[in-house]
Amino acid sequence: MNKQQNILIIGAGLCGSLLALRLGQLGYRVSVYEMRPDLRKVDISAGRSINLAFSDRGNKAMKLVGLEEKVKSLCIPMYGRMIHDEHGNTFQSNYSGREHEYINSISRGGLNALLLDEAEKHENVHIYFNRKCKSVDFEKTTALFEDNETKSQFIEDADVIIATDGAGSAMRKSYYLGKKFLFSFSQEYLTHGYKELTILPKENGDYKAFKNALHIWPRGSFMLIALPNLDGSFTVTLFLSYNEGEFNFNNLNTEEKVLEFFQKEFPDALAIMPNLIEDFFENPTAPLGTVKCSPWHYKGNTLLMGDAAHAIVPFYGQGMNASFEDVVVFDTILEKHKGDWETIFKEYEKTRKKDTDAIADLAIDNFHEMKDHVAHPIFQEKRKLEMALEKTFPNEYSSKYSLVTFNEDIGYREAMLRGRAQDKAILNLLNDKKIDLNDDLKIILNNVKKETEAILEDDRIAGLK
Amino acid sequence: MNKQQNILIIGAGLCGSLLALRLGQLGYRVSVYEMRPDLRKVDISAGRSINLAFSDRGNKAMKLVGLEEKVKSLCIPMYGRMIHDEHGNTFQSNYSGREHEYINSISRGGLNALLLDEAEKHENVHIYFNRKCKSVDFEKTTALFEDNETKSQFIEDADVIIATDGAGSAMRKSYYLGKKFLFSFSQEYLTHGYKELTILPKENGDYKAFKNALHIWPRGSFMLIALPNLDGSFTVTLFLSYNEGEFNFNNLNTEEKVLEFFQKEFPDALAIMPNLIEDFFENPTAPLGTVKCSPWHYKGNTLLMGDAAHAIVPFYGQGMNASFEDVVVFDTILEKHKGDWETIFKEYEKTRKKDTDAIADLAIDNFHEMKDHVAHPIFQEKRKLEMALEKTFPNEYSSKYSLVTFNEDIGYREAMLRGRAQDKAILNLLNDKKIDLNDDLKIILNNVKKETEAILEDDRIAGLK
Repeated sequence: MNKQQNILIIGAGLCGSLLALRLGQLGYRVSVYEMRPDLRKVDISAGRSINLAFSDRGNKAMKLVGLEEKVKSLCIPMYGRMIHDEHGNTFQSNYSGREHEYINSISRGGLNALLLDEAEKHENVHIYFNRKCKSVDFEKTTALFEDNETKSQFIEDADVIIATDGAGSAMRKSYYLGKKFLFSFSQEYLTHGYKELTILPKENGDYKAFKNALHIWPRGSFMLIALPNLDGSFTVTLFLSYNEGEFNFNNLNTEEKVLEFFQKEFPDALAIMPNLIEDFFENPTAPLGTVKCSPWHYKGNTLLMGDAAHAIVPFYGQGMNASFEDVVVFDTILEKHKGDWETIFKEYEKTRKKDTDAIADLAIDNFHEMKDHVAHPIFQEKRKLEMALEKTFPNEYSSKYSLVTFNEDIGYREAMLRGRAQDKAILNLLNDKKIDLNDDLKIILNNVKKETEAILEDDRIAGLK
Repeated sequence: MNKQQNILIIGAGLCGSLLALRLGQLGYRVSVYEMRPDLRKVDISAGRSINLAFSDRGNKAMKLVGLEEKVKSLCIPMYGRMIHDEHGNTFQSNYSGREHEYINSISRGGLNALLLDEAEKHENVHIYFNRKCKSVDFEKTTALFEDNETKSQFIEDADVIIATDGAGSAMRKSYYLGKKFLFSFSQEYLTHGYKELTILPKENGDYKAFKNALHIWPRGSFMLIALPNLDGSFTVTLFLSYNEGEFNFNNLNTEEKVLEFFQKEFPDALAIMPNLIEDFFENPTAPLGTVKCSPWHYKGNTLLMGDAAHAIVPFYGQGMNASFEDVVVFDTILEKHKGDWETIFKEYEKTRKKDTDAIADLAIDNFHEMKDHVAHPIFQEKRKLEMALEKTFPNEYSSKYSLVTFNEDIGYREAMLRGRAQDKAILNLLNDKKIDLNDDLKIILNNVKKETEAILEDDRIAGLK
């Protein structure tokens, strides 16, 4: 194979910069075009720390490129959910019964900067900023860019184009508008939007709330969450309907109404957010969308990866992890069919799409779980039981959350099918009083396993498989 | 309310012409713009009879506009599926155990012509042909048209615009491209396409196959079907993958290959299709897509209805029936909130969308059922059992097919949930040998009911509802 082929990557976000790094390591000639300025030189996020959940699937990719240790220094472990009720009471619900399993809060900018630095260490990798992709000619394998400074347009020719340009992908739009092949495509918005807010550090730099947890204020039809940053602050996100319910983004249009809403629903959060009003009216309200599409590739010419191929809502903390896992899966297939791009792209999509479809659906499930179910007694009972099972039988039981988050060698789809069946089994066994938290855990484990298998088998038969 | 408001309908297909007729009956001023020529004057389908399945939901709409008897004369009853195996053996599987429940084959053109004739009888209804909608300004409630003959463009202003312009709706495209509001949208293509073929009548005008059935040649990953026309012919449709399997649309590119395929897979059909090769190479191969979107309306200005809002694959024979049912549901709400269009549109979508989403999913289920499951012994056993239950307990049991097709007072979503649970119950009871065709039918009925309820209850608990 001729590694002197030119690979053009559109977008130097998390997925694009990781991909550039990996392809650089493998010896490919890579050019990356990014529409934004270099985030290492210009503070794009206007001073705010924006963080993301980083967990085992993402870490597997960091291992692949040899960055596990460097990334660890950017991470703040979060061992569980810290749930805040209406009265300001809190209780912690761990993510796993196994002590070594936890998720992390990580700075998007910090991680992206690290990946860019590492990618640029390879002389066969070149990254150009302020170049916005306008469209892609997937038959000619060329991309049209506009220079953000000079506004001049230019065309780049490549042997292969991989678009990692995010949920609003220009290449995906070219697929859709081109009508040259049957392109299945969906964009689905939730009725809710989100707005980012902040809990600033104490004057001495300490955290104003427990650092090592993902804080949730579940209120049934809406919620607030907070993730810690290295600087002692938390990035807070309000998830709320645009136009339904007593309070919504459309009617929270005065300082009084916002204060009334927070006083009523999140009094303990409000107490540590003196900057609420300023944040609320300065920061945008953004929509929550899921994008799926197929095919991801056009022949052996072009390929969509990361959010460009599968944007998901943030509720499973898997957006970045899924995009990083894309690169891991792609890497395996790349080496198997060196240089035969059409085969690589086809096999990659066949291998990967079922899993990215699954995490998209799981993320929507988790929206309902986080804003609502976590406050239900039977759900809390299920979680207690699962923690006990994971602790007592660490090699025999993993909850849906663990399967999705901490089992990077199981695909998302398998994790979803088994995890959903387990949830259904436990909730029904509890509801029918067939298991009880006071039972012997071994008996509970066996009942849950048996019931889970029965559910999977019934579904299999009903599917005539 | 001022019924002198101008309602603009885009598209005079089945849904648009029915809607125009109904609004005409209610006294509204209606203008309909259709891009094609008047099908009553120009033979659009180039000599071929194209037929559709017509059943109880569609008939409910015909009753609403007083056309039940007139439509009956266009109908050919189909009492069940006539299944043709590889060896040319046939067996009939009825659609219901109740004698009065059957579906019909009806000519699309004949029915559309009738609806246009009836709509035009109202002096407050005007229909214009050869006017193609280019785009809709949903904020100004205007539509841009092009006259197909003069190629001149003109803008029509209306108080309300309702787009019934089918799966490729121009107004839906304006919603999508306008980016003025969050528009959830999906287009999903099956891996299969379809091609229409014909079984011509005998020289004496008789049918060459049994007239009163929907013929199916199920072959696992593809199939052939045939529906009768009033002129003694059948319209045949081949459903086949574009590029997978030994034979597919991409590689059926010579007369020899097409003949080899039919000789091997459909010898009994080939024997009565001397015109196969001509049809095969003259007729287009078309894709099979599902379209869903939301919102259907913009304020009280514009509304999508019929295929423009929810295009489905043809496998449940419900496409036209669902569009006609749209008009029935719309009619109820229209009269409830006379003239308050925003409330009407909002309530209509809220009432209706869950059901059109359900029939879209059911239609895809039925693709797999028709091409594959109908040939499985356990599926056939289930259908035998269901026929016996429907015959013996006509008021106590309805299969999923009956719930969807013959129970127009149950919404598609309810039919789907109950129908799927019943299917799962029966298949598992049969598989686990808990019921047997030789058991007392009363006992079987009770077991099926009990198991169905248990499945629905387990799902309810797992959904934390």
